[in-house]
Amino acid sequence: MADHKAQIQEKIKLQGETVRRLKAEKADADKISEEVSKLLDLKAQLGDDGPPQKFTLKTPKGTRDYSPQQMVIRNRVLDKIITVFKRHGAETIDTPIFELKEVLTGKYGEDSKLIYDLADQGGEILSLRYDLTVPFARFLAMNKISNIKRYQIAKVYRRDNPAMTRGRYREFYQCDFDIAGQYDPMIPDAECVKVATEILSSLELGDFIIKVNHRRLLDGLFEACGIPASSFRAACSSVDKLDKTPWEEVRAEMVGEKKLDPDAVDRLGEYVRMNGGEELADTLLADPKIGGTAAAKEGLQGIKLFLKYCKLFGLSSEISFDLSLARGLDYYTGIIFEAVLLGQFNGETAEDSVANKSKENSAREVGVGSVAGGGRYDNLVGMFDSKGRAVPCVGISIGVERIFSILEANVARQKAASGEVLRTTEVEAFVASAQKNMLTHRMELCRDLWDAGIKVEMSYKQNPKLLAQLQYCEERGIPLALVIGESEVEKGIVKVREVTSRKEEDIPRDSVATEIRKRLPQCS
Amino acid sequence: MADHKAQIQEKIKLQGETVRRLKAEKADADKISEEVSKLLDLKAQLGDDGPPQKFTLKTPKGTRDYSPQQMVIRNRVLDKIITVFKRHGAETIDTPIFELKEVLTGKYGEDSKLIYDLADQGGEILSLRYDLTVPFARFLAMNKISNIKRYQIAKVYRRDNPAMTRGRYREFYQCDFDIAGQYDPMIPDAECVKVATEILSSLELGDFIIKVNHRRLLDGLFEACGIPASSFRAACSSVDKLDKTPWEEVRAEMVGEKKLDPDAVDRLGEYVRMNGGEELADTLLADPKIGGTAAAKEGLQGIKLFLKYCKLFGLSSEISFDLSLARGLDYYTGIIFEAVLLGQFNGETAEDSVANKSKENSAREVGVGSVAGGGRYDNLVGMFDSKGRAVPCVGISIGVERIFSILEANVARQKAASGEVLRTTEVEAFVASAQKNMLTHRMELCRDLWDAGIKVEMSYKQNPKLLAQLQYCEERGIPLALVIGESEVEKGIVKVREVTSRKEEDIPRDSVATEIRKRLPQCS
Repeated sequence: MADHKAQIQEKIKLQGETVRRLKAEKADADKISEEVSKLLDLKAQLGDDGPPQKFTLKTPKGTRDYSPQQMVIRNRVLDKIITVFKRHGAETIDTPIFELKEVLTGKYGEDSKLIYDLADQGGEILSLRYDLTVPFARFLAMNKISNIKRYQIAKVYRRDNPAMTRGRYREFYQCDFDIAGQYDPMIPDAECVKVATEILSSLELGDFIIKVNHRRLLDGLFEACGIPASSFRAACSSVDKLDKTPWEEVRAEMVGEKKLDPDAVDRLGEYVRMNGGEELADTLLADPKIGGTAAAKEGLQGIKLFLKYCKLFGLSSEISFDLSLARGLDYYTGIIFEAVLLGQFNGETAEDSVANKSKENSAREVGVGSVAGGGRYDNLVGMFDSKGRAVPCVGISIGVERIFSILEANVARQKAASGEVLRTTEVEAFVASAQKNMLTHRMELCRDLWDAGIKVEMSYKQNPKLLAQLQYCEERGIPLALVIGESEVEKGIVKVREVTSRKEEDIPRDSVATEIRKRLPQCS
Repeated sequence: MADHKAQIQEKIKLQGETVRRLKAEKADADKISEEVSKLLDLKAQLGDDGPPQKFTLKTPKGTRDYSPQQMVIRNRVLDKIITVFKRHGAETIDTPIFELKEVLTGKYGEDSKLIYDLADQGGEILSLRYDLTVPFARFLAMNKISNIKRYQIAKVYRRDNPAMTRGRYREFYQCDFDIAGQYDPMIPDAECVKVATEILSSLELGDFIIKVNHRRLLDGLFEACGIPASSFRAACSSVDKLDKTPWEEVRAEMVGEKKLDPDAVDRLGEYVRMNGGEELADTLLADPKIGGTAAAKEGLQGIKLFLKYCKLFGLSSEISFDLSLARGLDYYTGIIFEAVLLGQFNGETAEDSVANKSKENSAREVGVGSVAGGGRYDNLVGMFDSKGRAVPCVGISIGVERIFSILEANVARQKAASGEVLRTTEVEAFVASAQKNMLTHRMELCRDLWDAGIKVEMSYKQNPKLLAQLQYCEERGIPLALVIGESEVEKGIVKVREVTSRKEEDIPRDSVATEIRKRLPQCS
């Protein structure tokens, strides 16, 4: 045992050095946090004869707590998103955090390995949901719903290697908007993209583009370039890496790992690096090799109709028809899209990145993040229906964790620049005592104000100091202090003090609630 | 294989008969749903050569989806609860749905067996959270926070045998309000109960009482009655069953299963069936056997101070000092409380149950539900701190699932009585076409209204029928229909139709947004 412990202590020493070296080298923050995590795990192994708490105090890998400050930001973001979803007439549902494992099986292609399973404790075999789309499809099939426009905001789980500094987690929120039903082509699809643009605009995240493509066009391209149908999904997942990886590497993966014919891959390479607008669709339709393939033609005609509807919805500069967009998930069948912020990361300004974009004719070389994605999935619900009845669906999912990260950084910058504090409560008035033995009166005043719907607090001490109480108001941004002492109680008044201006006024105790409402028109 | 299948088919036949028999006997709904679930599982085993979907389409045992109608009710309830939490100055946090397993170990006594574990997929050993209290304590210790008033609304997980018809699930929401910090005795404790009463009143659930007791008093009682200290927790969990189980059965469990001395148990029985107010505390303090025990005296003096503060907060008829209240969890150290609705279940009216209450001097014989509970836990945070630093805490948890069930039943009754439909969207106007080929114009009008912040919808068909569109508005309770045809487009107008009155008026297209705002003062 002692030997074993010494071994661990030696490992801790070495790992500590690794961490110090990486920090000195200012290495990648994710790399550092990975090594710190290893260090903490080693320390945890040391175990038993320590203090009362025998394990490392942390949240599970890839997860985080939200502090009150972070919750304020999170709720602001979610409120803005919900406002847009409701503006488009969506209703909302909720589903359990876990599903029968079979519900998730066969829906995520190569990503299935990232699913969290629950332990078999006797009973059903369960997994945590990986997204909100598959549970939504299960919900539709189970309840035989053939028409719905719904949003859902909830956490999903992926056993990925998280890059938390960039807002990527193992537990994270998705905000989904989906339209299910048998409708005319591309009308709901265009509304999904309209919803995404309204959300990104209202969050004021700077410029963005929405890349769009069509799964049928990709299938047609693969076919036209001579990639066998059995390799379409594998090719798709390689092509999907083009937003982060240069073509040469993607080519190497397709030829090497996936054993695709180099000539076919080179032919494909000509196309998947193209992007543009309606004119690109026309060019490709006129290309006999592409336009002559049924699937590609179908996809291109779909894209054209989609772009026309986007224009009617006031969108065109935001939309980029991009043949490199593939989306990893198996279930897409039609239009696919992905929203990318331009130049928020790497300290780049939006202007820089737009310049880059025109230079490279693509935003993809810029190290920016995808913040929304989605597409059409017409066959997923049918996979759950005992008679295979299909309910065509299209939807968009907003990846809010990255948005939270960006806005948290903004708030931190503001705080550093102007000292501006983010309020985490909505307290309107603080009931304070000017002298000892006022607890009874403070409690009664609080009671009356709570019962009148005013947001008030008081100190939980018997005899708090007045200065400490007023300081608390200042620190927490509470606008009004209601000060009572023996003389106020005798006269039946309350001293109402504006915390920032320090102006004070005596108000009859019975009209305090009315007075607060008058002074704080925003109050409840 | 064929033999195996025949066996299952035979089992299905037998199980089907069981289900039919139970239904015919109008057996307990939980029992029926349990047997139906077994039947479905058997059918699922039949497996492979069936339709595309090879497994039972259901949510995991003890969980449910929330339909849009249920979500409206859920969000109304949560909004009211959040309003109260904010009125008392609480900030909010969030924690991951799972924790390192060690975080939960040793916190829940006999209930630990109900914890859901995640599968070991390499890496950390994780469990789903069982409540919000232990993660909150972990959060405080990890971030070295010594003062906070926070609320948290989130799902928790218990592998219990659910009674779903009565609003008990394996996945369910808790709404917690906790005050952490070193303060003067009973002031935050009384505020927690004030918060609970404000919430239950604002939800209009009928009469309720809040039972209170003190863990130190219970310890003192056990000691005074001659129960050994090592059996206090076991005795606690038996006493806790007195709200649902007659004394004779609880006594039998303590004497039989838990091997406690029958005389000691009988002495205890004299006390744990008492309830009342401040006068009961005085009576017990005057009882030499009880008042002479240090722990009991401490508990009784605490109760007295607590009841005094509750009175100052305007509470007394709602509070019942009840010696049978024990609360199962290990971590409580001081005051404990539980809110019980009177006469909502079993078709009983509030009046009936109040009558019962005065007759029996207790609400506990009435089959009603606990809807909130909590208490003081001064040592939990210290269990996570490497130096054992304590952060005293007190909190209340609202069990909203039962409240959802009650309100869902109310809405269903209303619907049956008056045909009143619950709106699940907030759509203010529907853009409709009076004739064919208006899609372009409908899309443009929607765009303009969305961009003006109005909540609008339109049909996703190229050429929907006007009647179908107007019917949709009626069914969904959309107040306005905006009808356009070729002549309206030519004249630059929109026909604004009030859906219920069917009154129509022509409005210039450019002022439609303004007009909608005027007609719907509540609109965005």
